[in-house]
Amino acid sequence: MRTIDWDNDRDCIEMVDQTKLPAEYTTYHAETVPELVESIEILRVRGAPALGAAGAFGVALAARRTDADTVEAFEEAVREDAGTIAGARPTAVNLSREVEAVLRELRGCRSVEEARRRTLSAAKDIADADVERNRQIGEHGAELLSADGTVMTHCNAGALATVDWGTALGVVYSAHEQGKEIDVVANETRPLNQGSRITTVELQERDVPVRLIPDNASGLCMQRGMVDAVVVGADRVVLEGGEAFTPRHGSGDDGAGQGAVFNKIGTYKHAVLADRHDIPFVVAAPHSTVDTELSATEVEIEQRDPGELREIYGEQNAPADVSVFNPAFDPTPMELVDYLVTETGVYEPPLDRRDFERVSTPESESSS
Amino acid sequence: MRTIDWDNDRDCIEMVDQTKLPAEYTTYHAETVPELVESIEILRVRGAPALGAAGAFGVALAARRTDADTVEAFEEAVREDAGTIAGARPTAVNLSREVEAVLRELRGCRSVEEARRRTLSAAKDIADADVERNRQIGEHGAELLSADGTVMTHCNAGALATVDWGTALGVVYSAHEQGKEIDVVANETRPLNQGSRITTVELQERDVPVRLIPDNASGLCMQRGMVDAVVVGADRVVLEGGEAFTPRHGSGDDGAGQGAVFNKIGTYKHAVLADRHDIPFVVAAPHSTVDTELSATEVEIEQRDPGELREIYGEQNAPADVSVFNPAFDPTPMELVDYLVTETGVYEPPLDRRDFERVSTPESESSS
Repeated sequence: MRTIDWDNDRDCIEMVDQTKLPAEYTTYHAETVPELVESIEILRVRGAPALGAAGAFGVALAARRTDADTVEAFEEAVREDAGTIAGARPTAVNLSREVEAVLRELRGCRSVEEARRRTLSAAKDIADADVERNRQIGEHGAELLSADGTVMTHCNAGALATVDWGTALGVVYSAHEQGKEIDVVANETRPLNQGSRITTVELQERDVPVRLIPDNASGLCMQRGMVDAVVVGADRVVLEGGEAFTPRHGSGDDGAGQGAVFNKIGTYKHAVLADRHDIPFVVAAPHSTVDTELSATEVEIEQRDPGELREIYGEQNAPADVSVFNPAFDPTPMELVDYLVTETGVYEPPLDRRDFERVSTPESESSS
Repeated sequence: MRTIDWDNDRDCIEMVDQTKLPAEYTTYHAETVPELVESIEILRVRGAPALGAAGAFGVALAARRTDADTVEAFEEAVREDAGTIAGARPTAVNLSREVEAVLRELRGCRSVEEARRRTLSAAKDIADADVERNRQIGEHGAELLSADGTVMTHCNAGALATVDWGTALGVVYSAHEQGKEIDVVANETRPLNQGSRITTVELQERDVPVRLIPDNASGLCMQRGMVDAVVVGADRVVLEGGEAFTPRHGSGDDGAGQGAVFNKIGTYKHAVLADRHDIPFVVAAPHSTVDTELSATEVEIEQRDPGELREIYGEQNAPADVSVFNPAFDPTPMELVDYLVTETGVYEPPLDRRDFERVSTPESESSS
């Protein structure tokens, strides 16, 4: 099933309950707006594209649950619910954007019935568009993989971060679907362990062989020839300023002075190791992830809660008062990236700004 | 206090109880041989040099607890206890070696009293020698550090892996004692988290400022200029065969064709990153860690229990049946090592075999 979808029989939102992973792969039905808001807050659904769909379906759900005497009162109530949904994770750009997109359907509706029909139809279109985009990313990326081989992944840029198929893992699924014998080495991805908790589960669900490793072992795996390609997602791709993160090894010719890929913390280390071992490093992300406005040095890297390292699953992992540096992302200078794959094709750095300038709205957190 | 020592008042072994870390820094008294054996088995005491001292003190403890009518019966009983102690961790080379060393004191003893005195004296000498050696490593290594700066460490090659002072952290403590303003960035060191559970605690105990990071963040720290030197321990240093782990970047001139340093998994990644960012990479270990016999490709890398990744502190972290690759160590080719520090001095690769040939007994697990 899809990560998040509309259940026509029960007339509500259905989603994979990611709080139950990795122990159980089960579904949850959000029958009401408060149930959806809670689901977003507790990360029952996460990942930028999936959150976008959650927002879209949320407006449709609000429209179906709202009773009002007039179209005006109805619209006011739906807008209030929509605000609550968008506020469930205020920094999730996709969530508020798709809430707004579906709200626009209310304009000019002459009946509550029409509004209910149009909002649900728009939400379904948004979800379908995400799957279609990921399918295209997957198709393009799969061309880069040989008939058999091992792909290393980091974090979860998979089906469970999107409505379906995923970005980095979409490349794996498309290759698998084409009959290529692909298996995966999944980095655990400390400190939130998305690799061990989520990526492994969805690969097992789709019968793609997967092997879990601690992040520390990725270098040894490459030494041993166990990795044929590294494929990761991206939270943001920028086209300038990457030279700030490129020490002596870089030169103007191979991409310094270009941009950088911001993705889950640790991505940079895997990229440096892949470069050393001549392993292709592939970034797979929606075209809209490319931000043509900012320079790499202008992208702020969020510091996360020190508690993520001081405790693991509620157990003490370090002194309670120890100082912690816990950044969410790191920049990988473009000189280390061999291919950028989007729904429009495969791009080899140095990237041409003209290929990306029409899209200016950055998406963030596509794999968080 | 020392990690492990003889408590003269209570006439038994006293040790820091490492099973209580990081929540509590407390001591445990092993009053009997079974209590010592249990302490070794459950890792109340760990680290090769500390285990050596545990074995040495263990024979002394056995001699003090054994009652026998004749010197022969006494010796037989002590030897039986010694075998039990050495068998508590059969792969710990230091443990059995120091048990044997102290057992040799029994030869020629004319009374039980003499045997008790001589075994305890020998055990204390062994413990003192470890501290003295670490002090020397620390003094030599501290010369490499500037008057202030930040040292990155991996795993725990510290006081708590030895009788006192430590090897990699001994370098930090010596610099600190000399008045240098040193602080530490400690890698968490998945999957056993020695960095977060042990290294942070002992640095706090000695008032050295420490910051905990996930292993994934070491690259970002280096990008940001937060690291002035990386100092790690070693489980084994070999003088040949490192070129097997040196892809295109290596050349005969800068150390390929030399040996490698085997240390906690992840060390290789930090070394590659340090090289990229022109940060000195320092290995601190006893001279006896250098193995002049084996080639790098002949060193077997132990695979550890998959459960270390499938669960963390008893909580499920991955599907229970997921395939896992969980190697204990990785080889860092010598071309990436800037300095090897032992109790006899500072060596700059390429290493000269003649500096190490007199020592042929490898120590293993110095930091595990």
